[in-house]
Amino acid sequence: MSHRTLAGSAVLALVVSLAFACAPHSTSQPPSQAAVDVLPSWNDTAVRSAIVDFVERVTDPASPDFVPGPERIAVFDNDGTLWAEQPAYFQLLFAIDRVKSLAGEHPDWATRQPFQAVLEGDMEALAAAGHHGLLELVMATHAGMTTAEFETVVGDWLATARHPTTGKPYTEMVYQPMLELLDHLRDNGFKTFIVSGGGIEFMRPWTEQVYGIPPEQVVGSSIKTAYEVRNGVPVLVRQAELDFIDDKEGKPVGINAHIGRRPIAAVGNSDGDFQMLEWTTAGDGARLGVLVHHTDAEREWAYDRDSHIGRLDRGLDEAADRGWVVVDMKTDWKAVFPGR
Amino acid sequence: MSHRTLAGSAVLALVVSLAFACAPHSTSQPPSQAAVDVLPSWNDTAVRSAIVDFVERVTDPASPDFVPGPERIAVFDNDGTLWAEQPAYFQLLFAIDRVKSLAGEHPDWATRQPFQAVLEGDMEALAAAGHHGLLELVMATHAGMTTAEFETVVGDWLATARHPTTGKPYTEMVYQPMLELLDHLRDNGFKTFIVSGGGIEFMRPWTEQVYGIPPEQVVGSSIKTAYEVRNGVPVLVRQAELDFIDDKEGKPVGINAHIGRRPIAAVGNSDGDFQMLEWTTAGDGARLGVLVHHTDAEREWAYDRDSHIGRLDRGLDEAADRGWVVVDMKTDWKAVFPGR
Repeated sequence: MSHRTLAGSAVLALVVSLAFACAPHSTSQPPSQAAVDVLPSWNDTAVRSAIVDFVERVTDPASPDFVPGPERIAVFDNDGTLWAEQPAYFQLLFAIDRVKSLAGEHPDWATRQPFQAVLEGDMEALAAAGHHGLLELVMATHAGMTTAEFETVVGDWLATARHPTTGKPYTEMVYQPMLELLDHLRDNGFKTFIVSGGGIEFMRPWTEQVYGIPPEQVVGSSIKTAYEVRNGVPVLVRQAELDFIDDKEGKPVGINAHIGRRPIAAVGNSDGDFQMLEWTTAGDGARLGVLVHHTDAEREWAYDRDSHIGRLDRGLDEAADRGWVVVDMKTDWKAVFPGR
Repeated sequence: MSHRTLAGSAVLALVVSLAFACAPHSTSQPPSQAAVDVLPSWNDTAVRSAIVDFVERVTDPASPDFVPGPERIAVFDNDGTLWAEQPAYFQLLFAIDRVKSLAGEHPDWATRQPFQAVLEGDMEALAAAGHHGLLELVMATHAGMTTAEFETVVGDWLATARHPTTGKPYTEMVYQPMLELLDHLRDNGFKTFIVSGGGIEFMRPWTEQVYGIPPEQVVGSSIKTAYEVRNGVPVLVRQAELDFIDDKEGKPVGINAHIGRRPIAAVGNSDGDFQMLEWTTAGDGARLGVLVHHTDAEREWAYDRDSHIGRLDRGLDEAADRGWVVVDMKTDWKAVFPGR
């Protein structure tokens, strides 16, 4: 995992931009019955219509845009698209918690960067450690154990950790409208995949329960694993070596490696998703590209062009010309988190 | 792709061993109705019973061995397991045909190894070129084009190429009993995957049509790809650099990378599949490991411990102790190829 991936430092940043004018709010006519049943946490705006219409067109056998079931592949970014990513990528918060848990076994960390910075909560010193420091942090917290052990560590963390500002479990900081979109797509014969810069094995233990996305439909960044037989028991051991960074140009590469065909729909929220949307929407026939614009400082966070996390800049500039749909979280989403 | 993968030179070998005594042929009682409907090209032997019983146990909610649907993952090797692999891995025959097709554009190949050996049909000189020569052959025939172009090349080859001894299209040299086993597993809620030493992008263009296995359920060896935008059109370009060898210890690694959970059934035919079966059957609960033993020189080929392709040696030694089922192609299969 890279700086971007691990630290969750998406490299760039973006805070709710009001320059966004893609989703006129319309309540001039009553919603159709379908509009009531489908995507209930989405307001009845042009954004919602664009999504619902796309699904109708590709699933109607009489439509010139009809797409056979097996080719209905939809890919979703995770951080900032399916769940929140503020005040830092949740995987970085995991790594920080993990350093604290393991500090007793590593007395040298008290005076060694980047660990000292983490233990002292000195985010400035952590940032100063740069990519190299963050990579060291990843390897110390994500490597050196078996895949099964890591899965347990992640599961235990999710069961007990709470978000620093909301106090909620991280798995409740998922977007209700996106859960509904995933369901709507699957109800219409789509296979839904995650394609995230986050660690593939950090996501897999919980994506099936939280999003209905099984492990084999999760694509992400990875470190290498090695097969060993220990006392007759085979294990896969996580190595302190990067394997693949699933971000930016890496996303189409990861899609090709794992899925082997071009998706017809892609949903992201940052410029790290630009190439994923570009690759998806360059295919023949009907295509859907969606960017979530974080515009709601009250219910969630507002960030875009200048954010260090989830920066959305080029995407905002080019979405209209490319026919991509930009979700204005504040106006397009009736609810943000489940139960709210 | 390695020597093993590319050349299809499985490194070791195996020819029909009659030492195999795992599947007593029984016709002493009439087959049950289920036995007639299911796996019709399998003789009613202990091997067939072991497979049918396993599927019944993991799908019966009342059984202590019941496995929930999403965890019913079955992995299949390809070369020698789903389709034939003699007189050489079909992907090597593809590379050889490809060298001949491209020779006009590469006049230097006439006097340069390993190309000269291929053009002159000098298999001895080709073997002498070793791993390095084979790697050069792979890169010259599998890299340097876009993924879409490579898919077209593979599709065109399969549409016209014929097997050197049977004269059949390669996609008809698949095993009818395995097609039935794939169907039977899927009919029982299994998700079926290929996990092959062969090239992932060599298989994906045709596995859905031939085996009912979609591209996203194919795991294989790979070279790297790079994302480029050419005149506004995004492409993935196949690089002359190995990415991953999905063989031996690589198979559990590839399974973990692509599937993210341990299969409950694994089917292979060579020692290149040993670790895949070892990893699969080391899990808790009911597990099925199957090795296809090529024992039928009349209807297919007979090879095992001494073969350079698809060598099966350790697998034969350890199958019984490990509880793996060994299919004796000659006695367990009523038919080998479709239509025979």
